Amino acid sequence: MAAALKVGLAGLGTVGAAVARMIVDDREALAGRCGRPVDLVAVCARDKAKNRGVALDGVRWHDDALALARDPDIDVFVELIGGEGDPAHSAVRTALAQGKSVVTANKALLARHGLDLVQSAEEHNASLNFEAAIGGAIPIVKTLREGLLGNSFARVYGILNGTCNYILSRMERDRLSFAECLKDAQNLGYAEADPTFDIEGFDTAQKLSLLASLAFGTRIDPDAIYVEGISSITLADLDAADELGYRVKLLGVAMRTETGIEQRVHPTMVPKDSEIAQVMGVTNAITMDIDGVNPITLVGPGAGGAATASAVVSDIADIARGVRVAPLGRPLATLADTKKEPMQRHEGGYYMRMLARDRPGTAATIATRLAEQNISLESIVQRHRGGRPQGGGDPKGVVPVPVILVTYATTEDAVRRAIAAVEADGVIAEAPQLIRIEKNR
Amino acid sequence: MAAALKVGLAGLGTVGAAVARMIVDDREALAGRCGRPVDLVAVCARDKAKNRGVALDGVRWHDDALALARDPDIDVFVELIGGEGDPAHSAVRTALAQGKSVVTANKALLARHGLDLVQSAEEHNASLNFEAAIGGAIPIVKTLREGLLGNSFARVYGILNGTCNYILSRMERDRLSFAECLKDAQNLGYAEADPTFDIEGFDTAQKLSLLASLAFGTRIDPDAIYVEGISSITLADLDAADELGYRVKLLGVAMRTETGIEQRVHPTMVPKDSEIAQVMGVTNAITMDIDGVNPITLVGPGAGGAATASAVVSDIADIARGVRVAPLGRPLATLADTKKEPMQRHEGGYYMRMLARDRPGTAATIATRLAEQNISLESIVQRHRGGRPQGGGDPKGVVPVPVILVTYATTEDAVRRAIAAVEADGVIAEAPQLIRIEKNR
Repeated sequence: MAAALKVGLAGLGTVGAAVARMIVDDREALAGRCGRPVDLVAVCARDKAKNRGVALDGVRWHDDALALARDPDIDVFVELIGGEGDPAHSAVRTALAQGKSVVTANKALLARHGLDLVQSAEEHNASLNFEAAIGGAIPIVKTLREGLLGNSFARVYGILNGTCNYILSRMERDRLSFAECLKDAQNLGYAEADPTFDIEGFDTAQKLSLLASLAFGTRIDPDAIYVEGISSITLADLDAADELGYRVKLLGVAMRTETGIEQRVHPTMVPKDSEIAQVMGVTNAITMDIDGVNPITLVGPGAGGAATASAVVSDIADIARGVRVAPLGRPLATLADTKKEPMQRHEGGYYMRMLARDRPGTAATIATRLAEQNISLESIVQRHRGGRPQGGGDPKGVVPVPVILVTYATTEDAVRRAIAAVEADGVIAEAPQLIRIEKNR
Repeated sequence: MAAALKVGLAGLGTVGAAVARMIVDDREALAGRCGRPVDLVAVCARDKAKNRGVALDGVRWHDDALALARDPDIDVFVELIGGEGDPAHSAVRTALAQGKSVVTANKALLARHGLDLVQSAEEHNASLNFEAAIGGAIPIVKTLREGLLGNSFARVYGILNGTCNYILSRMERDRLSFAECLKDAQNLGYAEADPTFDIEGFDTAQKLSLLASLAFGTRIDPDAIYVEGISSITLADLDAADELGYRVKLLGVAMRTETGIEQRVHPTMVPKDSEIAQVMGVTNAITMDIDGVNPITLVGPGAGGAATASAVVSDIADIARGVRVAPLGRPLATLADTKKEPMQRHEGGYYMRMLARDRPGTAATIATRLAEQNISLESIVQRHRGGRPQGGGDPKGVVPVPVILVTYATTEDAVRRAIAAVEADGVIAEAPQLIRIEKNR
């Protein structure tokens, strides 16, 4: 059997400890699958004393990640520290510069510095594997960079943030407000004390920037992504979606257009019969629309120690077996520039919920403003609040009533103009809710 | 750029022609992704004159597959002939014996001769890739042998035959009989003139034998699989399933038990909220239950020229890029023997539909026979045919009425004994329908 692959592991939190356990406790099985032993030889973490449920006797302890990355006796540097800055960044750079392969679960680092790191990996003939950075245990990186490599993609989209999907699923199932579900998610450890990064879509955007590069052969560029979160979603929206045959999900979408690659993160109405719509709770899912082939969907746990560790160990095993492919599936020099597709040009159906002042002619005014922008309506529903007398009075429109509109395919630009006109008319009580509709291919 | 990988392609049917088009028409893109050109240098097929929508000028034509396999100027032999016998078998053997790597979509060949072929591939240092043999474009082989390699599996199961899933989906949606849907499937080209191989579960069993080996590290053994098809399924069963919260799917299931690996193919009731239950039409899906990690499901097109070709080209690309792993994920010598788990020992819930002679005490007799085998009932429903007078007469039990029973977890053995006793009692009119229930983990 070939010489052992020597692993240095930076970060022994939930994921790091799970990785250590898999390497140490399943040593024999892993060696069998890899054709050579995989040895954990060095680690670094903040607290040496903490019990992590794994025997680390004989494993060298480094005080900082940089020292571990420089350790001449490791072949692979596994970065599970997190964060786009130091120490993760400098440690990964240092490891690659010495020709050590790197395995990381750090989407933030890759979204921000991925291109530089890939260049360093190429120059020093090292692997840079990051299966765990997107979709936890779902093998989406391998699928895009190896499994479906001969294909061209029309669209890749998915539920990439378990926290948001948990919140939206619970709102729908238990008829709770966004705020209540967020609180529960925090209590369960699914959301951070400051949840902004998850619920405002930034986490999804970082992952999408990597997916888009893998699928479309473009340079990673998180700044090219339009981002909108789920904090404005109400039960009224979920109920309307249900009636219309949709479910609301926070999606990351990357799609080929005539002029470039559109990348966007926003709450989305997806048809109830789509695979993506079935995915509830913290589960993640990614659908790939492929030219000439029916869509492929991967569904699975997007987070959690064991799921993420599973992806990290698979990445390590690839290095042990000599499976090496370009980190982004293609040589860096061949990646195309990402042209930021302005969101104004986005084409699709739109759901709008407005609070209209209940005066004669309000619906007509709204419909006219939409027609002026050549927007065709699939449906318009104006509901009077329950309990109000039929045809009864409120001639001054003091109590606003919801108007729900669904458009046929139009452009973001047209929708924005129409809304501005409606607002200028003074017929609605507050800024309208807008949710984009994503059809099955 | 490195030297071109030279491909010989045996079989130019729907899949073969699609592979040829992908290699020839997307030559530049493929070379970019692989880091070296992939050239189609030789082919063999029955009809030289046929137009396949691809320019084959300058490609050598062989009259038989064996001659192509022996062509000293090819690096990879792509076998798209099909069938477990010759010429496919001898051609693949010949190619491997000469150290040529092989890509095949031939599940029958691998189910029957896979172990010998893997041995030859190992001895001659060649790749043997077969992503297209299971689940069409779904990257399930790569996922099991590389992507989730650090994990242990509790159960792997899926819809592996699009014909059966099309028939069951149409029966349910359009309220048609099995025979009508089969006929439609034949007209649409989804089913063969002799549909036995698909509808009786043999195609699923061949694929399952490969999946089980990849997931559990066991030797391929299709004879260890219990096989039952869908031809006995009626609308009455689908309706009962619907009422009970299930949907009927033909599944291939491989699962770890205390004593071995249980492998079985049969119509199965799956909970409506499972990922698998959502999969309609010719689509395939595979769910993997992993120790310590939530399930992962892959869904996508299981057949069709473009989908299958996509998998074949990915396999070729792996060879071009030097990605080589053991064909079954582990060295042949480390594979465990498959101990055939007798179906009698299968544990799970059962659905039974009996046609009972409508006499006083029939339900009691049936319930007693089940109780004698320690089978607990989740539900028992006896319905009188619509139109018969309530409490009216048929004291001799001439017109049988359906009795539908659902059991809690029990064993196949107990169920078989109970049914035999009920039949001996003479209270049912024909052999009962039996459908196993597969719960979400």
